[in-house]
Amino acid sequence: MSKVKVGIIGATGYAGAELLRLLLGHEQVEIAAISSVSFKDMEISEIYPMYKTFCDMVLTSQEEVIAKSDVIFAALPHGLSQETAEICGKESKVFIDIGADFRLKDEEDYIEWYGGEYANKNLHEKAVYGLPEFFRSEIAGKKLIANPGCYTTAVPLALYPAIKNSLIELRGIVADCKSGVTGAGRKPTQTNHFPELNENFYAYKIASHRHTPEIEQTLSTLSGEKVRITFVPHLLPINRGILATCYARLKNGVTEADIKNAYAEAYMGERFIRLVPEGKTPTVKAVRYTNFCDIGVTVDERTGTLIAISAIDNMVKGAAGQAVQNMNICLGLDEEMGLLTVPPIN
Amino acid sequence: MSKVKVGIIGATGYAGAELLRLLLGHEQVEIAAISSVSFKDMEISEIYPMYKTFCDMVLTSQEEVIAKSDVIFAALPHGLSQETAEICGKESKVFIDIGADFRLKDEEDYIEWYGGEYANKNLHEKAVYGLPEFFRSEIAGKKLIANPGCYTTAVPLALYPAIKNSLIELRGIVADCKSGVTGAGRKPTQTNHFPELNENFYAYKIASHRHTPEIEQTLSTLSGEKVRITFVPHLLPINRGILATCYARLKNGVTEADIKNAYAEAYMGERFIRLVPEGKTPTVKAVRYTNFCDIGVTVDERTGTLIAISAIDNMVKGAAGQAVQNMNICLGLDEEMGLLTVPPIN
Amino acid sequence: MSKVKVGIIGATGYAGAELLRLLLGHEQVEIAAISSVSFKDMEISEIYPMYKTFCDMVLTSQEEVIAKSDVIFAALPHGLSQETAEICGKESKVFIDIGADFRLKDEEDYIEWYGGEYANKNLHEKAVYGLPEFFRSEIAGKKLIANPGCYTTAVPLALYPAIKNSLIELRGIVADCKSGVTGAGRKPTQTNHFPELNENFYAYKIASHRHTPEIEQTLSTLSGEKVRITFVPHLLPINRGILATCYARLKNGVTEADIKNAYAEAYMGERFIRLVPEGKTPTVKAVRYTNFCDIGVTVDERTGTLIAISAIDNMVKGAAGQAVQNMNICLGLDEEMGLLTVPPIN
Amino acid sequence: MSKVKVGIIGATGYAGAELLRLLLGHEQVEIAAISSVSFKDMEISEIYPMYKTFCDMVLTSQEEVIAKSDVIFAALPHGLSQETAEICGKESKVFIDIGADFRLKDEEDYIEWYGGEYANKNLHEKAVYGLPEFFRSEIAGKKLIANPGCYTTAVPLALYPAIKNSLIELRGIVADCKSGVTGAGRKPTQTNHFPELNENFYAYKIASHRHTPEIEQTLSTLSGEKVRITFVPHLLPINRGILATCYARLKNGVTEADIKNAYAEAYMGERFIRLVPEGKTPTVKAVRYTNFCDIGVTVDERTGTLIAISAIDNMVKGAAGQAVQNMNICLGLDEEMGLLTVPPIN
Repeated sequence: MSKVKVGIIGATGYAGAELLRLLLGHEQVEIAAISSVSFKDMEISEIYPMYKTFCDMVLTSQEEVIAKSDVIFAALPHGLSQETAEICGKESKVFIDIGADFRLKDEEDYIEWYGGEYANKNLHEKAVYGLPEFFRSEIAGKKLIANPGCYTTAVPLALYPAIKNSLIELRGIVADCKSGVTGAGRKPTQTNHFPELNENFYAYKIASHRHTPEIEQTLSTLSGEKVRITFVPHLLPINRGILATCYARLKNGVTEADIKNAYAEAYMGERFIRLVPEGKTPTVKAVRYTNFCDIGVTVDERTGTLIAISAIDNMVKGAAGQAVQNMNICLGLDEEMGLLTVPPIN
Repeated sequence: MSKVKVGIIGATGYAGAELLRLLLGHEQVEIAAISSVSFKDMEISEIYPMYKTFCDMVLTSQEEVIAKSDVIFAALPHGLSQETAEICGKESKVFIDIGADFRLKDEEDYIEWYGGEYANKNLHEKAVYGLPEFFRSEIAGKKLIANPGCYTTAVPLALYPAIKNSLIELRGIVADCKSGVTGAGRKPTQTNHFPELNENFYAYKIASHRHTPEIEQTLSTLSGEKVRITFVPHLLPINRGILATCYARLKNGVTEADIKNAYAEAYMGERFIRLVPEGKTPTVKAVRYTNFCDIGVTVDERTGTLIAISAIDNMVKGAAGQAVQNMNICLGLDEEMGLLTVPPIN
Repeated sequence: MSKVKVGIIGATGYAGAELLRLLLGHEQVEIAAISSVSFKDMEISEIYPMYKTFCDMVLTSQEEVIAKSDVIFAALPHGLSQETAEICGKESKVFIDIGADFRLKDEEDYIEWYGGEYANKNLHEKAVYGLPEFFRSEIAGKKLIANPGCYTTAVPLALYPAIKNSLIELRGIVADCKSGVTGAGRKPTQTNHFPELNENFYAYKIASHRHTPEIEQTLSTLSGEKVRITFVPHLLPINRGILATCYARLKNGVTEADIKNAYAEAYMGERFIRLVPEGKTPTVKAVRYTNFCDIGVTVDERTGTLIAISAIDNMVKGAAGQAVQNMNICLGLDEEMGLLTVPPIN
Repeated sequence: MSKVKVGIIGATGYAGAELLRLLLGHEQVEIAAISSVSFKDMEISEIYPMYKTFCDMVLTSQEEVIAKSDVIFAALPHGLSQETAEICGKESKVFIDIGADFRLKDEEDYIEWYGGEYANKNLHEKAVYGLPEFFRSEIAGKKLIANPGCYTTAVPLALYPAIKNSLIELRGIVADCKSGVTGAGRKPTQTNHFPELNENFYAYKIASHRHTPEIEQTLSTLSGEKVRITFVPHLLPINRGILATCYARLKNGVTEADIKNAYAEAYMGERFIRLVPEGKTPTVKAVRYTNFCDIGVTVDERTGTLIAISAIDNMVKGAAGQAVQNMNICLGLDEEMGLLTVPPIN
């Protein structure tokens, strides 16, 4: 089988550069072109010296990426993907959007949380939401894939089996999430200046983060009911990783065994979900640099609460890795291709 | 006024050494003696070179500390304070226990969570629980003070005004807490070995941490009802600081203004409580090395949830600083004496 | 004695804010005014929430600082202090420059390394170089003090006793220095963006750092000969601290005892120099938040090399603390006033 | 070609676990067995949860590893490899020792620096020192390979071209090295307890580290003269990476161009050596998780000094990666096989 020609728009941002890492190790793809507005005509390894000799491609324009590639990944700030998606659509190319533009089904939500209207409603209807563990069958063969965000991957994966089996109350769910700082991107800011973040920790965008409607959309789809959650993200002074600690009230009579069985059954056969063994707890280090989502569940019998914790690498399962997983499904390749590099222990 | 003679039992543990730092800067005390079992006869500055020239006292025995001091602080593993407290009691000395032995009023709780019985029930009845913002009047003049733990300081301070004013449901409270690693003490362990904790983050003792009954005891006292909470601590790869993110369902009709007013009023005049300004959020860095508890409250109107966040330094307001605050109250000194050193910005 | 009115120009930079911390704890000063160009009319505690309730002063203009203060500290980018110094000089106020404008005696050096000429040569002749351990007697009573840089404090302090006693060859000295990142200031940059610096380490400005001529100026003054050194700074992924590892060839016949005696004698009675005990080594943590310089010396007999290591806090002895020390000397106060706050252990 | 059966003795230490990571990704090997004394009969993924589903092998005994494998890697404390090497030798198996037992040619050095005699002198004569860039031709086909240490890889690689071309004085070389903490192993210690090392930095084993004679042995072999160096290691509060900043006096008349040419020529064609571009400097992050050694050279014309800086990952090129490289050479496989996984950017 000849290799698939892939391209990355926005290859110098953290998500784009992580995509490059994964695609370079993918045996069925050939990287046709990579682009950057800020660093056009430079070699990618001038910006990221760790890539030297692995990939010294010259960054080109978005147009060239589209022209040379059959699958286009875009890692762009929100609002900038819609036009590109339209061009790709006309040329029947596969477009996988790492950004937020195609994630929300309801334009009202997009207007409320992102402050802009949809440029092309028709296009949004064609988009599939690429969370493979839930929507695998819809992804295959699609041309336009909205790759989920990081929190929006971690929280639904933590809660899905409990929701699917009606084991928890849908009202009152709390998602207390903590993220490494790469989630905030490559651009320097005061808050992420080393001396400020180092030895610090705090919540941000409390009950007002844009991932809220996206998480709710997925939980609502999974449950068949309108779900609202309380979502509070926190910033960790580490590079990578998300830990989502989710709380929900157990329905009357639900036992710990019910919960354990539901999770074991729901995720049986899922290559990228690992239920942590009894007595262990998910850690961000165990999933670092991988496409895994580790999940642990605890029943607090004293209060009748389910505590479901998931850990992912925000750059992999929360961005670039899931995009590759989506591409694999979309093209009919083995779903785990390019995603099983053994991670380091520290 | 002549200086008070104070002593520290267990001065080489993190909490004991932090007490030493604070007491060295306290104008009304004289450090009479400090003890250590492991490092007896060594100078404290051999263990902590930052203290060189500030304090080069030789570590002595527990007996000598008691003999030479009028106020004795004990920073010992649980189970070891009761005998010492009894000796101090007989000699009418003030005993301030940084450990857990005298914190729980109900022996059943102690047996269940700590696995031992009370050595002297009579002594426990004389102990006062030293959380000054709630129990100030009871502390003055007492001889036996149980200094609260770190989480058990942060969580009740975050929730108190809402409870006092009956603004939240007492059922279903969640305390998602994150602590720096000094809370686990000076003794090396595999999990706190630098390469293991660095770049890591995870929950531990999920819904089973010993601070659970202590938090519940305080919330029950404050509310007049039996309160049970869901408490999940997490370990941060930083040295100091606790952030407690607390969730509670708002009672019907409670508005954001009600909440803001309740907090402003409840903590008016409290020197060590700072309500963060509108638009800001508590951070562990803002309270580092201080006795402050910074608090921020958010009302999530979409779900009817109160999100109350508190930040403390686990070593200061969560241990040694609060112990000094308790001593000051107990002896009739200015409550903030020795506790207002300006902290560094980074 | 009435308090001295002091002011800080550039109070929101890291060095300025650190000065504020120290001056707030200084019993003989009153902070008259603080200024900032970027944050004028804001409270300093809006930028640094750790200062809330300790200092909520409003940032004003440089002019107001000068008008209200008798001692003016300026923490400004190089090139901007000369005009201010001139104004202060005319009004007979004490001006202590944390920046580099008055450090180099030889204008040629300034032109070569900083790229600008002296605005007022006369003023430069009046400036004294404020490294108290070497030039204490010259500082007293002066009106214009050039506060040394961080590396330029650490390296000469490490080598002084060996140079003074002619124990080392002046040719071939190497200073391999490592600095925490606060030395680079508060302004966010790509290299100091958290995800880039975290888990990283490297040399920068190799044999081309601007502190080179300043170090050489001091060593030349101390030795009476023209000294040239090889100086390589490195950036540490920590907030504070400089470790200077200095190498020099021992003169024939010099023994370890000669070295130890020279250091003990040279620094006897120096409050802010601590020679580390036999078998110990200086660490940046032991001097963090203090004005100390810890020094350790090792003789490598196999190669005839002196290894002299010094540790300072770049923000204190390397900037703000030394400035306060200079002020104290200048005004005839106790040299250590405001500089003996006990530091935390971690 | 059938796969080579390899085994790891001491697979749960950091070096052993890193070897496992690399060997799992090596297309021509099959992991026959892994052993551990402390964790025998447990799955490796119980100790390292990141390996879950990648490798869940059960840890067995050293004997079983030897019996099942054709190539045996040993990652053991020094002194423990010699007996094992002898057994492997008798069965004509390839033995690659990550430890120090076979590195020093001169038993006197071993006795002086390690404090023990050679168990079997004959065996030591058969051992080849596995630094491929220098001794590649000697490694091929050998049965007993002494894998170099971390500092002992970084320093000679930094200096080799200058020595080979007689561009520097051999007397007075200084190697100021800085290492991440994984170099100290998995066992918890007080100094590497997170709160102690975090935000700290210092030198250790100043001019007395055991890698000194090993570095000197290599430099002496390369130069044909007896070389002595001054070697000072420092501990970095990061997990991985060594930066070696090496200083040497340039011989008269040597120019920067001579140096640049010598390095370019000496390392031309070396897959794992990257000379950093003009204006750039080696960083530990650029080589993290890879087998690369990045090198940058600067001529300090003011003092006639060569500053040669190398960066490696102490766990890869400084241990496990170089061991795999040695195995590849030894067996006649492509030298880079299993060593070209693209590293992450952060």
